[in-house]
Amino acid sequence: MKNWEKNLRETAPYIPGEQPDFPDMIKLNTNENPYPPAPGVRRALEELQTARLALYPDPEAKKLVEELSAQYRIAPEQIFVGVGSDDVLGMIFLTCFASEKPILFPDITYSFYDVWAKLFRIPYQTIPVDEGFRIRKEDYYRENGGIILANPNAPTSIGEELDFIEDIIKHNPDSVVVVDEAYVDFGGVSAVPLIEKYDNLLVVQTFSKSRSMAGMRIGFAFGSKRLISAIYGVRNSYNSYTMNYPSIVCGVAALKERAYFEECTKKVIGTRERVKKELRELGFSFPDSRTNFLFVTHERVPAAELFAMLREKRIFVRYFKTPRIDNYLRITIGTDAQMERLLEVLREYLRPE
Amino acid sequence: MKNWEKNLRETAPYIPGEQPDFPDMIKLNTNENPYPPAPGVRRALEELQTARLALYPDPEAKKLVEELSAQYRIAPEQIFVGVGSDDVLGMIFLTCFASEKPILFPDITYSFYDVWAKLFRIPYQTIPVDEGFRIRKEDYYRENGGIILANPNAPTSIGEELDFIEDIIKHNPDSVVVVDEAYVDFGGVSAVPLIEKYDNLLVVQTFSKSRSMAGMRIGFAFGSKRLISAIYGVRNSYNSYTMNYPSIVCGVAALKERAYFEECTKKVIGTRERVKKELRELGFSFPDSRTNFLFVTHERVPAAELFAMLREKRIFVRYFKTPRIDNYLRITIGTDAQMERLLEVLREYLRPE
Repeated sequence: MKNWEKNLRETAPYIPGEQPDFPDMIKLNTNENPYPPAPGVRRALEELQTARLALYPDPEAKKLVEELSAQYRIAPEQIFVGVGSDDVLGMIFLTCFASEKPILFPDITYSFYDVWAKLFRIPYQTIPVDEGFRIRKEDYYRENGGIILANPNAPTSIGEELDFIEDIIKHNPDSVVVVDEAYVDFGGVSAVPLIEKYDNLLVVQTFSKSRSMAGMRIGFAFGSKRLISAIYGVRNSYNSYTMNYPSIVCGVAALKERAYFEECTKKVIGTRERVKKELRELGFSFPDSRTNFLFVTHERVPAAELFAMLREKRIFVRYFKTPRIDNYLRITIGTDAQMERLLEVLREYLRPE
Repeated sequence: MKNWEKNLRETAPYIPGEQPDFPDMIKLNTNENPYPPAPGVRRALEELQTARLALYPDPEAKKLVEELSAQYRIAPEQIFVGVGSDDVLGMIFLTCFASEKPILFPDITYSFYDVWAKLFRIPYQTIPVDEGFRIRKEDYYRENGGIILANPNAPTSIGEELDFIEDIIKHNPDSVVVVDEAYVDFGGVSAVPLIEKYDNLLVVQTFSKSRSMAGMRIGFAFGSKRLISAIYGVRNSYNSYTMNYPSIVCGVAALKERAYFEECTKKVIGTRERVKKELRELGFSFPDSRTNFLFVTHERVPAAELFAMLREKRIFVRYFKTPRIDNYLRITIGTDAQMERLLEVLREYLRPE
């Protein structure tokens, strides 16, 4: 090791998630939306003034913030936007979890929480979810440096009610409480109405799932003016221009088409409910999903075996080789046709000899 | 102050840079390129598959990295890409300056260096440039936790030769040395050839100036595999998907048009050289610029006065109310017509009574 290498911040070696790319594949492994973005996004790209690209984008992404403000009826000063909800959450970790006390989150949840904590040297403690993968709210009634919960949670797909979330906030007036609602539009209950009541609450959402725009990288947070301005303070000390010009104009275009958005989420939910019945008949069990994915285990066949078998058939789902959940598969809800093909392959494989 | 506020990382209150927006204005205040991006960028946007936006972008931005690799003849594993050079530099600060010893940079340079150091709690020491705003290389021959130099430097516009930069690298085998070349394509000398020789060197460039793409947010760094992989490790611990789909395809399109790129930078340099002569005749002096801007002071009229006068005429230039340089203006090189208008206004104002 050379001397200059001692000055490097080391991270766990990164293993990129599988991004298969076969023309005939069925991609149900990264919780993307099977439907394209709203038609207005296409028009926005076509009308985009290329010469405008020579100029810096608006650092405040005002047009995007204003459209979010109009759609969600929240003041612009209470809205933060970033490069996907990962950027939004990363900035929140850096800004809001600067205490010496450990932050708290469930042992089974979005895999980035402990990565951010390690990166920014934030002490943390994970709290086991119960046998049915449910969060126990009482576990969060203890001293801490902050709390982050995904609701609905991933990869469990379980969504909790508003009073559950509010109880946790009520018991933590001295911490910032972050609710990560990446999947909320598929049947979850949002904590957004609580931001006026609790100035220590942040609610984070994304365009990646319900708005079919994972490729554009747009996430946002709602919270008190005090919290939002603190996050912008840190963001602007890092990079004032994170939202590029195409993401601002396309983000606005997507938000304007509320009917299309509602139709797409409704279609995904409809497909999910049909698939649930079929999977149950095939011997699968799973928590009641409020997301665009199912978290399934089979009564007889190990998840790892099913994962490999599906892969052979060019159907990609997600398998976590992680304690407690290594007999589960996370299956994104695709189109009806994609799910029919999945069920066909499963029926064939699981057919009694 | 509420208890939860004690957990916030506080930053200096952010004052956004002036982004004037008048139809008839002449904007020479943020070093943007007056010419539009290469025509291929327009086509890339038109041909962009909107449905592809529903999927996550390639986390490795492989196509963009491969095109940079082809154009600069550098191995893909030696290239890092980010959301503008601010993102690239911010990630480098977080990754490479984790020593307890202070990092070093000039007192007059890009204003974000001390902001990043403060944000990430990196000790730093600024070293005064000389009376003519030149960096003294010997000042960097001392113990340190890292070095960052802009070459050409901003806002001074001064560019140093390759042996000057190499001497600094040679004297610092135990530190990471970063050369920020945001302006290098306008006549500077690049340290890129040195990356094969020194594995502790990083060279950072951007699409914002010479490629007319400030609005797209694309920056990149070249360095040893060891350094580049360490930066990706930190980047991926923060956000694996920073480069959105449009920036990847448009970045590739811009790189492919080398002739257009060379023509634009040549035009800017030509305009700059003509403007220099005219400004000298009007009583201005300035360092010999190797950038797309001039750093000027007038023999008689204070910079603050000229700044305000130009503003009245809807000509926006940059004025820093900062010790040592508060009698200077930073003027971006625009089109010939824009610069002619600037000179006209200055001639009129500075005309002997």
